[in-house]
Amino acid sequence: MANLVEPHGGKGLVCALLHGGALEAEQERAAGMKQIEVSARAKGDLIMMGIGGFSPLTGFMGKADWKGICENFQMADGTFWPVPITLDVTKAEADSFKTGEEIALVRNGVVLATMKVDEKFEMSDADKKWECEKVFRGEGEESQGDTFWKIAEEDHPGVIMVMAQKEVNIAGPVKVLSEGTYPTEYKGVYLTPAETRAMFEERNWSNVAALQLRNPMHRSHEYLCKIAVEVCDGVLIHSLIGNLKPGDIPADTRVQAIDILIENYFVKDNVINAGYPLDMRYAGPREGLLHATFRQNYGVNNMLIGRDHAGVGDFYGLFEAQEIFDKIPQTGDTGKDLQCRPMKIDWTFYCHKCDGMASLRTCNHTKDDRVILSGTKLRKALSEGAEIVDHFGRIEVLDHLKLYYGSLTEKVEVKMQAAASGESM
Amino acid sequence: MANLVEPHGGKGLVCALLHGGALEAEQERAAGMKQIEVSARAKGDLIMMGIGGFSPLTGFMGKADWKGICENFQMADGTFWPVPITLDVTKAEADSFKTGEEIALVRNGVVLATMKVDEKFEMSDADKKWECEKVFRGEGEESQGDTFWKIAEEDHPGVIMVMAQKEVNIAGPVKVLSEGTYPTEYKGVYLTPAETRAMFEERNWSNVAALQLRNPMHRSHEYLCKIAVEVCDGVLIHSLIGNLKPGDIPADTRVQAIDILIENYFVKDNVINAGYPLDMRYAGPREGLLHATFRQNYGVNNMLIGRDHAGVGDFYGLFEAQEIFDKIPQTGDTGKDLQCRPMKIDWTFYCHKCDGMASLRTCNHTKDDRVILSGTKLRKALSEGAEIVDHFGRIEVLDHLKLYYGSLTEKVEVKMQAAASGESM
Repeated sequence: MANLVEPHGGKGLVCALLHGGALEAEQERAAGMKQIEVSARAKGDLIMMGIGGFSPLTGFMGKADWKGICENFQMADGTFWPVPITLDVTKAEADSFKTGEEIALVRNGVVLATMKVDEKFEMSDADKKWECEKVFRGEGEESQGDTFWKIAEEDHPGVIMVMAQKEVNIAGPVKVLSEGTYPTEYKGVYLTPAETRAMFEERNWSNVAALQLRNPMHRSHEYLCKIAVEVCDGVLIHSLIGNLKPGDIPADTRVQAIDILIENYFVKDNVINAGYPLDMRYAGPREGLLHATFRQNYGVNNMLIGRDHAGVGDFYGLFEAQEIFDKIPQTGDTGKDLQCRPMKIDWTFYCHKCDGMASLRTCNHTKDDRVILSGTKLRKALSEGAEIVDHFGRIEVLDHLKLYYGSLTEKVEVKMQAAASGESM
Repeated sequence: MANLVEPHGGKGLVCALLHGGALEAEQERAAGMKQIEVSARAKGDLIMMGIGGFSPLTGFMGKADWKGICENFQMADGTFWPVPITLDVTKAEADSFKTGEEIALVRNGVVLATMKVDEKFEMSDADKKWECEKVFRGEGEESQGDTFWKIAEEDHPGVIMVMAQKEVNIAGPVKVLSEGTYPTEYKGVYLTPAETRAMFEERNWSNVAALQLRNPMHRSHEYLCKIAVEVCDGVLIHSLIGNLKPGDIPADTRVQAIDILIENYFVKDNVINAGYPLDMRYAGPREGLLHATFRQNYGVNNMLIGRDHAGVGDFYGLFEAQEIFDKIPQTGDTGKDLQCRPMKIDWTFYCHKCDGMASLRTCNHTKDDRVILSGTKLRKALSEGAEIVDHFGRIEVLDHLKLYYGSLTEKVEVKMQAAASGESM
């Protein structure tokens, strides 16, 4: 009998999504509420609150939680949480409704949720800077001393996003009315925590790992994944299907490439190919913790963390996202502490002398024996139709990606431009 | 700061080995005691009791422990233990001393230990058969119904050993006076639990795996080991250096071959090559549990269990030694339950399509894509100096083994005959 890890926070799956009659009633009520347009990021957060991916959160965070999380990874009640989940509005918007009032959160004309505003708190530039210091500054070269702010405001997408937030954060519980187009656009891939848990239980998995992906799955990812397949009951290959940076490979292409990889190089029963609706926050080590936190809600107890997990430029140490798991506070209360454990893997590559995949922990050979290709170089080679070095990728997957790059100039340009404008959904 | 798993039984390392003045005094006292010659197996057991490898055992087991272990893997006080650790003597020997008396346990003229006889209990043929049924009968073909006894008494070395035991088991605490020739013959390889724990702590390991070996380490073992290196702090490569069957490769050759493998294909800091002084009990799944139990004492919390671990003929299901870990009783008391967890790995091999090592959990290709060689076929090829199939082994290791086989007809024949007579130490 499967015995999956409990959802984070000790309160089961906390799902704010309404269905059926309750949904219809709330939609009607929402029509009479003040409407506030929210960001793409907030949309992802709302859907996660809807489906239990952000358990035990019931809505956007107030100042005490925001502060505790920035300072020490803990909400006001001591529950672990790695990254503030806040909702920003303009001063004018904030003044247009009262504390205690219910408002409707909308995006592109769709009412995503209603929210009872419990609290408003101003976010000065100094506050935002403080949040950025706590959340985004790491131990890498670009995070050192004055360098951080010189580079971050122009080059760190997470910092840019927070600094661009509006002047007031509003907090309170939400009722979620929409999952957007995820259920239809990513049918069979967009799975809720309740759904993955049911699948794990059906397969009798209790020791489950997750592989985080936002880029195509190459042999290094395959190796991480297969290590986990060897020692766990199964692996959730979990791709970000929310918003990315312009130029990144779209989710449908990535998800198809994973299907091709599984078809040709995996035992199907041991992996599940799925996606989650969040945007990248680019928070480096803290994002690694967030990945583990919401994976726990999906039923995962081992989070694969490789080299430079969720890395941004040189802001973070290459293994900082692994080390941070040993530094977060432990209350001893399983309902409050993060239960999903990191499965830390070193820098991986194909090694000719090892005659297979290896890592810096297992291979004692030299650089010349190893096949190493950066994602950037790979994208260049793929888009130019150049040959990829032997043992780097799987031919079936590379062919699929080449197909995408080949089609790019013809029909995808329009889509890319849409993406560049800030949203790919 | 390293935080190693506690020794089994919740009482720290229980070591019966005497040193210095206490040793000398006991040696003198032993000279006045009744001497009982013990088996090679008992010698291994005594050394393990001496160095804490069998913590929390203080001596050979009485009837209540023997019965509880056979029936339900538990000693009389509820502490987990997988295999009876008993000492057999003849009826005449048993009659030559009283309960409460101290006796000396000797082998080949060396006093190994003294023992205070707390209990004598007769072991009829029916008792021995019952022990064999409980300990050695498994779920494999040769364990089914009447087949078991038809085959086991001639072909199961564990059953043969128990059935050949003398008529009376004697129980009581021991004081161990000798580690035999292990410390000198296997200097640097024969490590005590206190020594491995100190080494783990020095390396800051807390999550440690062990690889059990009694045969040369080929690529499948290397693969198991490297999976563990990837996900744990380090791996103890732990070879049986006690007695084997005639025809098996001697421990020194195996240990050298492991050194060669580590030198050429491992990151040295991540593995430790060591040996333990026990004989094989050939108890299949229960032996797998014993491997995990004494490894916990060595500071190991993950026991690698592959396909047909400690298997004998077709007496056991290929993964029975993995499954049994889920069937043993749990009291909920960490002092009593086995804390060392199995790291279960499926059948492994090199696969041409996977382009590396894989297992039935990760590879979906066909038999023809895989390089599979049985240990028996390998030994035959090595002893005939034949070429080993590509990707099966490491050339440096195979060369070393060929050297051994080449020298066999010249100088090793005498040694092998000695081994065939029942003891290789």
